[in-house]
Order: sequence, then structure tokens, then C-alpha cells
Amino acid sequence: MKRVLILAAVASACCWAQPAQDCQPAPSNAGGALYPCIHSDLRVTFRIAAPDAHKVLVATNTADSGFGKGPVDLVRGEDGVWNVTVGPVVPGFHYYWFVVDGIEVSDPSSESYFAHNKELSGVEVPEKGADFYDVQNVPHGDVRIHWYRSKTTGSWRRAYVYTPPDYDGHAGARYPVLYLQHGSSENGSSWSRQGRAGLILDNLIAAGKAQAMIVVMETGYATQPAALLAPAPAPAAAAAGRNPSAFERIVVDDLIPMIDSAYRTLADREHRAMAGLSMGGAQTLQIALSHLDKFSWIGCFSAPIRSFDAQTAYNGVFADPAAFNQKVHLFWIGAGTAETAMHDGAKAMHEALDQAGIKNVFYESQGTAHEFQTWRRDLADFAPRLFR
Amino acid sequence: MKRVLILAAVASACCWAQPAQDCQPAPSNAGGALYPCIHSDLRVTFRIAAPDAHKVLVATNTADSGFGKGPVDLVRGEDGVWNVTVGPVVPGFHYYWFVVDGIEVSDPSSESYFAHNKELSGVEVPEKGADFYDVQNVPHGDVRIHWYRSKTTGSWRRAYVYTPPDYDGHAGARYPVLYLQHGSSENGSSWSRQGRAGLILDNLIAAGKAQAMIVVMETGYATQPAALLAPAPAPAAAAAGRNPSAFERIVVDDLIPMIDSAYRTLADREHRAMAGLSMGGAQTLQIALSHLDKFSWIGCFSAPIRSFDAQTAYNGVFADPAAFNQKVHLFWIGAGTAETAMHDGAKAMHEALDQAGIKNVFYESQGTAHEFQTWRRDLADFAPRLFR
Repeated sequence: MKRVLILAAVASACCWAQPAQDCQPAPSNAGGALYPCIHSDLRVTFRIAAPDAHKVLVATNTADSGFGKGPVDLVRGEDGVWNVTVGPVVPGFHYYWFVVDGIEVSDPSSESYFAHNKELSGVEVPEKGADFYDVQNVPHGDVRIHWYRSKTTGSWRRAYVYTPPDYDGHAGARYPVLYLQHGSSENGSSWSRQGRAGLILDNLIAAGKAQAMIVVMETGYATQPAALLAPAPAPAAAAAGRNPSAFERIVVDDLIPMIDSAYRTLADREHRAMAGLSMGGAQTLQIALSHLDKFSWIGCFSAPIRSFDAQTAYNGVFADPAAFNQKVHLFWIGAGTAETAMHDGAKAMHEALDQAGIKNVFYESQGTAHEFQTWRRDLADFAPRLFR
Repeated sequence: MKRVLILAAVASACCWAQPAQDCQPAPSNAGGALYPCIHSDLRVTFRIAAPDAHKVLVATNTADSGFGKGPVDLVRGEDGVWNVTVGPVVPGFHYYWFVVDGIEVSDPSSESYFAHNKELSGVEVPEKGADFYDVQNVPHGDVRIHWYRSKTTGSWRRAYVYTPPDYDGHAGARYPVLYLQHGSSENGSSWSRQGRAGLILDNLIAAGKAQAMIVVMETGYATQPAALLAPAPAPAAAAAGRNPSAFERIVVDDLIPMIDSAYRTLADREHRAMAGLSMGGAQTLQIALSHLDKFSWIGCFSAPIRSFDAQTAYNGVFADPAAFNQKVHLFWIGAGTAETAMHDGAKAMHEALDQAGIKNVFYESQGTAHEFQTWRRDLADFAPRLFR
């Protein structure tokens, strides 16, 4: 009996003060906070002090990642601190939030990230043996927050621009450019913060696996003020039955010319790629496939693709396989195996393209869902294939 | 009676749906959120949906700015949406948070900012007639997130580096550097996000009021691992009875050499300034006054200064006024008139320096407290005096 009591005391201490020895604070915690913490078996313990609350839940947007099918109840301790342990979860980056007495709140222990059109908490669950997105002892590029004025919207916008290591030191060098878009309700900061795009490129470039390149990350929303709307779409677009979105106009008319002017780029289609995740993947297909005079490398990460028809899709751009294969140096499609709908759509597109004789790469991220671990792996597979 | 009823209906609609006509969404809101909103008389309406909560308060860290002496109760509407209007408040940037059933939470409607060692909400209350920190139609510099390895801590760190407009376009030009530090429990992002340092410099440079300069914003915390601690302080420091903090070592041994190597700087004391706010002001005095071989322009914004003695302070650096006046081109002290303790300390220091014959500038930000509106004004007064 005595032994049981001692163990119980230890178990109690473990949960309300320091995390259990095998539970390490998540690298995404703010200001040295101890929770959430990650157990060695990848269970995650969440904790929040809420002495006067009546009900506290923790929720994520990916049931596929092992957090459970819906919000999970935390249990109140005698000291008003609430706890729960979930999982094991899939490694990678997961958005989460608490629901305290019916209100969705961020975790004061976590850094916050723009997603779902607001600031959410995020927990980074390290993947054993994977360091391709970690800060390593290699030369690092900068991520530059760059203001520019958009003619399309008549307003100032900010692009996040990754310049490769020692860009400033090679004053004569010019670089190819990857335009890389975030997902729905995220923004231009998401790829470098949640996605660690800069660190992934640093590591690939240092290992000689990817060409040094510039990566441009813009925020994929735009509205055109009525005063700036053209009375009709431009003739070429109209002939193709298209009325380009404001964001497409920004990329083509504002962003590319600005980047080619402000940075030392190789300013032609041979040295310009576009890729994006989820909504950004759909934007990539729409924009790059409509402007093959501007892009020749294309990546589509976990985009929503339904009933793809190689003959008719995207105004018939795939209808002439020989012409497409000559023009497009890389058509890359990826999805995580744990995001069923996106994976099914990507696989069907890949198979239809194969059948039509369109060269393409299909990459499956094993065991990951509609989350940044899928997209980090996508980028690490996609970027080395560019500009070769 | 009929008229009164109609007015009541309008008043009710105003508070639970769109803001009242004279209440504009704060520019700091996330994702197009309508609240908090700012009335034309600078009252602020906060709003949060929390149907199951029992008590909701809104709190700020500056009672001096018109939010009230402590947290203010929100009132629950029939639809479970809680509201309160406070103020009028002082224009500028104010951290705030809700307290829902005893737990401090961020406002899902606000962008969040690192402060108080966690992510807090912030409300930007525009100052009528002031556009010196707004995005204007002028050339803009970049803010670069720059990784570097610190020998002092044995780890990778990130500096936020503002490069002036067209830095890349003037490949032969070299620039002076201002090292600019945040306050306690903020971080290296605070000056460019909350403080809008880049925009302030853009506007000053465009107007010909300030020299083009590089601004380096680092995170002012550091610990030295035991393995890296020198067995004793360096001889010069030891002779002066000093054991430099880890952050001082970083600035002198790691950060300045890295910046002078990675950026096109004018790498001497004549072209190097340091300034900081609150804790960063104290760090500035400690570091810059201990290294007058490295700095000749010094700014102290709202630092905690108590019982200043010009003879003995900072190892007697002010004891020889003629020598000090020759070495230091600018010794600038500022505080807001609404932050009583900081203002009293700054004023006493200014008067003691005047009496001792030390040239100094004392700037009072009228009506502002221990907040970024004070420090934005400080920067706008300080930066134009640099490197002349």
C-alpha cells in the first residue's frame, strides 16, 4: 500500500508542476513555457490555469493527426489547473486552441500563428530522425519583409522574400525565383514561420541538394476597388472565357515585375516556379497554367482537386501532351496519405495525367494529414528538382 | 414614444452587429474583424462572443492611457456577446487582453504581439493628424529576419535588420547603424511590428529629415551556458568592477561584428548608435556607456532611472564633462509625460547632466504613457539627429 501511495504522489506532482521527465516542452512554446509538452511516445499534454472556468476543451483542425475526433475535455485539478494528455499524435506542426466556457481562446503558453483568419496556437511535435527543417550549423538566408505598391488593389502590400545565404555577398549573381503560396485563412508569413521554408532551403542548399534560389511568399487575398476594375477582362483572357482574379492580376502585373526589379533575379520563365499548398495549390494551377509564358516549374501541394479531366481542365492546357511536356519542366503533385480527400484527388489527377502522357511527379507524404509536416516534406522534395 | 422605440432599436442593432457609424474597426484587427472599434472621440468598444461565460473583463497594462484603473467588466447581451466601451483613450498602441472566467485570453479579433512574455492582443488607436508612422507613398526599406550564430550563447539567434530604401540598388554605399532595443518581455520583432520603426525611418528618410541608416533590432535576453562562461571577466571589465551580462557580450562580441560583416556598414563609433526603450534603455546605457570606443550616439527612451549621480553613475563616465562631450555626439533622454516614474527619473537625469555640463537632449512626449506611442515619437525625434 505504501508504495502505491508514493507513486500516486509522484504522479500528482508530475502533472501540476514540472512536466513528467519524459515530457519535453514543445519547441513552439512562448517565453520558456513548460506546456504543452511532448512525451517520448508522442502523446501531448496540454495544460491551462483556469480556476473559475466550468468547462475547458482543447481542439485542433486535424482529427487525422491523432488528437481525437473532436474537442477533448481537460480535467480540472484541485488548484484550478486543467490538464489532458492526447495522442500519440503525428509529428509536425498542429494548430490548436482551447475552448473555455464556450469561447475559443489561444493558449497563453504558445506562440501564435495566423490561421483560420485569426491568431491560433500551434504545437510543434518533433519528428524523430528528421532535421531537414531544423536550424542547423549551415549558412542561412534572410527572410525579408518587403513593402510594395500594387496597381491592382491601389494599396501597399507586404511580400515575405527569402534570399539565399550570402545573396548580398555575390553582388553579380542572379537567382531563379520560386513563388510559394500559403493555404486558406493563412497569410504571407505562414510558409516561413509554420512551414520553415527558409530553413528547409538553407539546409538543401548547404547540402548541395537544391540550387540557390529566391522564394517569394505573398498573402493570397486581394480585392480590386470598383474604381480600379477594368470594364471588361483583357481580350486574351476574355477569349479564353476567363476573368482573372485580383490575386492573379497582382502576381502577374505587380508582384513579378516588382521582384524582378528589386531583387537580382533570372527574370524569365525558365527560372521561375510557382507552388502552393491547399488553396495556394489551386491558385498555383490557375495562375501558372494560365501563364506558361511566365512559369515553367509548377508544384501543387494538397490542393482540392475534383473530377479532373486532362482534356478540358484549365482551358485545355493538358490537351496537347507533347506541347505541355516541352513547355513545363516540372509538374509536381503531392499530398499526405492521411488527408483522404486531397490525397484521392491528387492521385486521380496524377493517374489521369500519366494516362494522357503528361510528365508529372506524384509525391505521397506517408502518414501526414492536411498540415505543415506534409508541406515541409513537399517543399523538401520539390525544391531540389527546380532549375536543373 | 414611437420615436424613442425606433432609436432604441437602432441603438441595439448598433452594438451587436456592425459597429456604430462613428466607430471604426481598429487598424490592428485581424482578418477584417469589426471589433475592437474606435469612436471619433477615441472611446474604444471591445466585444467578444462568450455565451457560456460567467464573467468577462478587459484589461490593459496602462491605466494612464484612459482604460481605467483596473480590468473593466463587459456586459453580456442576450445573444451571449459581451460588450464594453471605455475611454476616451490616449492615441497609440495598447496591449490588452480579456479575462474570461478568471483566465487571461487574447482577443480572437486582434493580431497578437509578443509582450508580457506571451502573445497579447493590441489595439491601435489612430492619432489625429499624425502620419509619421503610417504606410505612406514613399520608398520603403526591408525588415530582414537574419539568423546568426552567437559564440556567447553557443546558439543560433535572429536579428531583425531594417535596411533603408534601395539599399540593394546602391551596391557601393555604406550606411551608419542604429542598434535599437525593445522593452522587458517583448522581443526583436516588437520595434518593427508594434513600434513601426521601419515605417518611421522610411518616412523620415523620404522627407530628407534623417540619414539613410541600418537599424538592428535584436532580442535582449541571453544566458551563457556554464561551459561557455569565462572563468573570470575580461581584465578591462574586471578592473572596472564589471562582469558584463551575456547580452552585452553578444552585442559587442557577436552582433556588431556579424552586422559589420553581413551588411554594408560604416563600421566605426562615429557611425554607430544605440537606443532602447524601458529595459532596452537601461541596456543601452549599460552597454553603450561601457563601450564608447564602439558607440558615439546614445538614446534612452523611458528607462527606469533612479537616484542618478553624474559623478559616479556608470563607472564615472560622466565625471569629466569635457571628455564626455567630445566623445559622445548625442546623449538623448526621453519619456512620456503620463508615465510619472519614468518621466521623473528621466527629468532628474537630464537636470543632473545639465548641471554637470554634460550636453544632452531631453524630449517629453506630451500625454503619452509607458507605451509605443511615446517610443514612436522618441524615435522620430531621435533618428533625425543621428550621424550629422
